[in-house]
Amino acid sequence: MAELKALVFDTFGTVVDWRGSLIAELTEFGRQRGLSVDWAALVDAWRGAYRPSMDRVRKGERPWTLLDTLHRETLDRLVQEFGIKGLSEDDLRHLNLGWHRLKPWPDAVAGLTRLKRKYIIGPLSNGNVALLLNMGKNAGLPWDTIFGSDLFGHFKPDPETYLGVCRLLDLAPGQVMMCAAHNSDLRAAQSLGLQTGFFPRPAEHGPHQKQDIEADGGWTVVAKDIEGLAARLGC
Amino acid sequence: MAELKALVFDTFGTVVDWRGSLIAELTEFGRQRGLSVDWAALVDAWRGAYRPSMDRVRKGERPWTLLDTLHRETLDRLVQEFGIKGLSEDDLRHLNLGWHRLKPWPDAVAGLTRLKRKYIIGPLSNGNVALLLNMGKNAGLPWDTIFGSDLFGHFKPDPETYLGVCRLLDLAPGQVMMCAAHNSDLRAAQSLGLQTGFFPRPAEHGPHQKQDIEADGGWTVVAKDIEGLAARLGC
Repeated sequence: MAELKALVFDTFGTVVDWRGSLIAELTEFGRQRGLSVDWAALVDAWRGAYRPSMDRVRKGERPWTLLDTLHRETLDRLVQEFGIKGLSEDDLRHLNLGWHRLKPWPDAVAGLTRLKRKYIIGPLSNGNVALLLNMGKNAGLPWDTIFGSDLFGHFKPDPETYLGVCRLLDLAPGQVMMCAAHNSDLRAAQSLGLQTGFFPRPAEHGPHQKQDIEADGGWTVVAKDIEGLAARLGC
Repeated sequence: MAELKALVFDTFGTVVDWRGSLIAELTEFGRQRGLSVDWAALVDAWRGAYRPSMDRVRKGERPWTLLDTLHRETLDRLVQEFGIKGLSEDDLRHLNLGWHRLKPWPDAVAGLTRLKRKYIIGPLSNGNVALLLNMGKNAGLPWDTIFGSDLFGHFKPDPETYLGVCRLLDLAPGQVMMCAAHNSDLRAAQSLGLQTGFFPRPAEHGPHQKQDIEADGGWTVVAKDIEGLAARLGC
């Protein structure tokens, strides 16, 4: 096995709790505005549009588009569908930037801080650089650098993302570990020669989550969470 | 004036002391190997080839090439010209990576740490991402992210670099400050609408430096060094 030099992390669900963060923020927003909305349902629908909206770009049905823009288009549609009235352009912009303010899972900052002493660490996410950078500043994530999908003009699982990171790092794929709570992300990375690190986030999708409860591939490392990954890697 | 959100820094000479670092490292290398070489002259010649080698790329006389590669080509030539014998491929690779191990000026880490509390900070350098990332890890530079020239396929002062950073940050040029000890770098950034921060590095080129001893343009902020810049910006 090649000497490991860098760890890159999926972010939404893996490092930050998108569902809990957005439901909490929107619930508070609704309370202040006196809006009666099923915010959990809205957040699940928002995230539900994530993969289909990126797939339209991945299939070439529309040109390269930032995730910030895809999020905003979905939000505009959901505001209509949920019958939410009285939101200004500033309100909508603010709510869309909720994705820049997601909160980390409890082990994330401590685990990343330990890993950073020995390895290069960065997100490799479908988020754009500005989103991931703002998220990192807000959440105190100690990234060494930011790998956003706009650096490559591709969303995961396109090979251009995983291999693009290796090229920018001037490392062989075997010197880089893709870390994620999603087996499919690791499957794509492993097929290109990257090492793989899995830890489950069984509450990512709420109380009834069925997928990604456990590792379902031959990953390089399987751990409980990011602190567990740091322990397994001797950090 | 737009609200300042991000500061991007030239690195070679501005944040790190390339000349002093390389002369010290090569002198020690030569001592261990029993080599008698004018290492200061070699380092000055190495840096002397920096701008011409990039300009060949900028003029389209050769395709996009990483600064690591340009540095290596120059080193190979200078090893011949200085009559240095007995270096292996591993030696040459190690010496070329001296640019990844440059030492920061004494105020750099403390000043950047102060600025990071309030602003996004990153290098905007002609170095490639891997070079700047390794330099940052080695020197303890607390960058939020890394803007290497390979993200843009252009070297400064091409507009694609300054404007590319604004695009990735999703900020207007007026929300971004280019910080450098080189007036020409700031002139290019200012012409594109960026804010500008100057502080001199009068020993960058050694004891007989003539250029960039002081600010020669109408820069947004002029300070003594990076700690002075932090103070001027209320950090």
